[in-house]
Amino acid sequence: MSGYVSPSTGAAVRAVLFDTFGTVVDWRSGISAAVGSFARDHDLVLDPGEFADEWRAQYQPSMGRIRSGQRPFVSLDVLHRENLDIVLRDRDIDPGDFSPAELDALANAWHFLPPWPDSAEGIRQIKRDFIVGPLSNGNTSLLVDMAKAVGLAWDVILGSDVSLAYKPSPDAYLKPASLLGLKPGEVMLAAAHNADLAAARETGLATAFIPRPEEYGPRQEPDLVASADWDLAVTSITDLAGALRAGEGSSHVDHGVG
Amino acid sequence: MSGYVSPSTGAAVRAVLFDTFGTVVDWRSGISAAVGSFARDHDLVLDPGEFADEWRAQYQPSMGRIRSGQRPFVSLDVLHRENLDIVLRDRDIDPGDFSPAELDALANAWHFLPPWPDSAEGIRQIKRDFIVGPLSNGNTSLLVDMAKAVGLAWDVILGSDVSLAYKPSPDAYLKPASLLGLKPGEVMLAAAHNADLAAARETGLATAFIPRPEEYGPRQEPDLVASADWDLAVTSITDLAGALRAGEGSSHVDHGVG
Repeated sequence: MSGYVSPSTGAAVRAVLFDTFGTVVDWRSGISAAVGSFARDHDLVLDPGEFADEWRAQYQPSMGRIRSGQRPFVSLDVLHRENLDIVLRDRDIDPGDFSPAELDALANAWHFLPPWPDSAEGIRQIKRDFIVGPLSNGNTSLLVDMAKAVGLAWDVILGSDVSLAYKPSPDAYLKPASLLGLKPGEVMLAAAHNADLAAARETGLATAFIPRPEEYGPRQEPDLVASADWDLAVTSITDLAGALRAGEGSSHVDHGVG
Repeated sequence: MSGYVSPSTGAAVRAVLFDTFGTVVDWRSGISAAVGSFARDHDLVLDPGEFADEWRAQYQPSMGRIRSGQRPFVSLDVLHRENLDIVLRDRDIDPGDFSPAELDALANAWHFLPPWPDSAEGIRQIKRDFIVGPLSNGNTSLLVDMAKAVGLAWDVILGSDVSLAYKPSPDAYLKPASLLGLKPGEVMLAAAHNADLAAARETGLATAFIPRPEEYGPRQEPDLVASADWDLAVTSITDLAGALRAGEGSSHVDHGVG
């Protein structure tokens, strides 16, 4: 296995787990394409990119009700489907105008999102020396569909419906580590989102930042740079593979802490 | 995906999940080798094959106490380690004569077992058209170690510590199906053990029998032939790949129901 020791946890990293939506896959392009196709089929006039943004904007509030205990755990598939109805109604489109199967199929687009160009290859490289898997709010079946469709060679997939917790709740990070038989410090989260990394560090995980400056489209503002001294800050998943191989505890690019 | 429809469930199979100990890996050879090495290191006189058989003989009773509710769920790693002490004491060997680290390392041999010659290739072939994974009493970390060591290209690993149930308890079969977003009839269990297949069928899964006539050594008696009309009865995992590809609902070899 690897010789990469996390400067912050002091432990040799054994598993590198990845945030998926935004870090591994380009949800905005995938969802925009599916929404565009749905709109054409049904003669709806809408901007697919805006629709995708609004659908994604419902993501945190819908999980928040579960994190706070207001609502028992339901899978992200259920939330995506409910949030689709909300976004449609916000545009004065009645979900009742479509068959449930059509709406289910549109919501299922979250299972089939295109990876960033470096994702599949970078994961394959990191897999040589580490356990690789998603650490995502996606449910297991979503993550299995995504991996098979685009060739993400995960060793293991433990969705949020295994942890029964949504990030940034501590169990979302600690349950996968425990199921892998690892101490939190032996697990690294790789993510494009500083808040995700902050929560992972809080629970004792090692951290790597990979900026995805177009995740939210051309006018993205958050998460363009690392906001703290994460163990690694790299430019892509293939770059992360190189940094781990080199056993470097320092970052590849400027942290730009600000 | 595939066109294989299970004659017994009437559903198109989407996932083929495998019993592991005995069906995918040759636990007796692997454990005998580890025990032989341990015996040489410590000048113990014992028959490694017999020791492996006795260790395995503790497997069902130790899980039975959990299945019956006498004991809360603990992982198979814990049971393997406890059972090692039992087998040593049965031979008047005091586990206290060894360091805990040495005994842990020996028990960890259950993570690193050699596959049967057709396993890795057969799984790779079936993976083209189906979700593949273990459906094992092994814990997740054991199954991840096993897969990485010998190249079992599972799509997903959901150990018994995810289901919190040991086969043949119904949850051991139903929980993985549910996490994969599938109906029980869309999941096939492939196993070398008729009792495992009977329990899987009871919960609504499709079934495939693969005899492993030397799993228990040269004098094996049980499970040499299929004991019921499982959906498929094949001679190896590569043979199973062919039978699924052919979309055949009938068996490849005589069932030899007896």
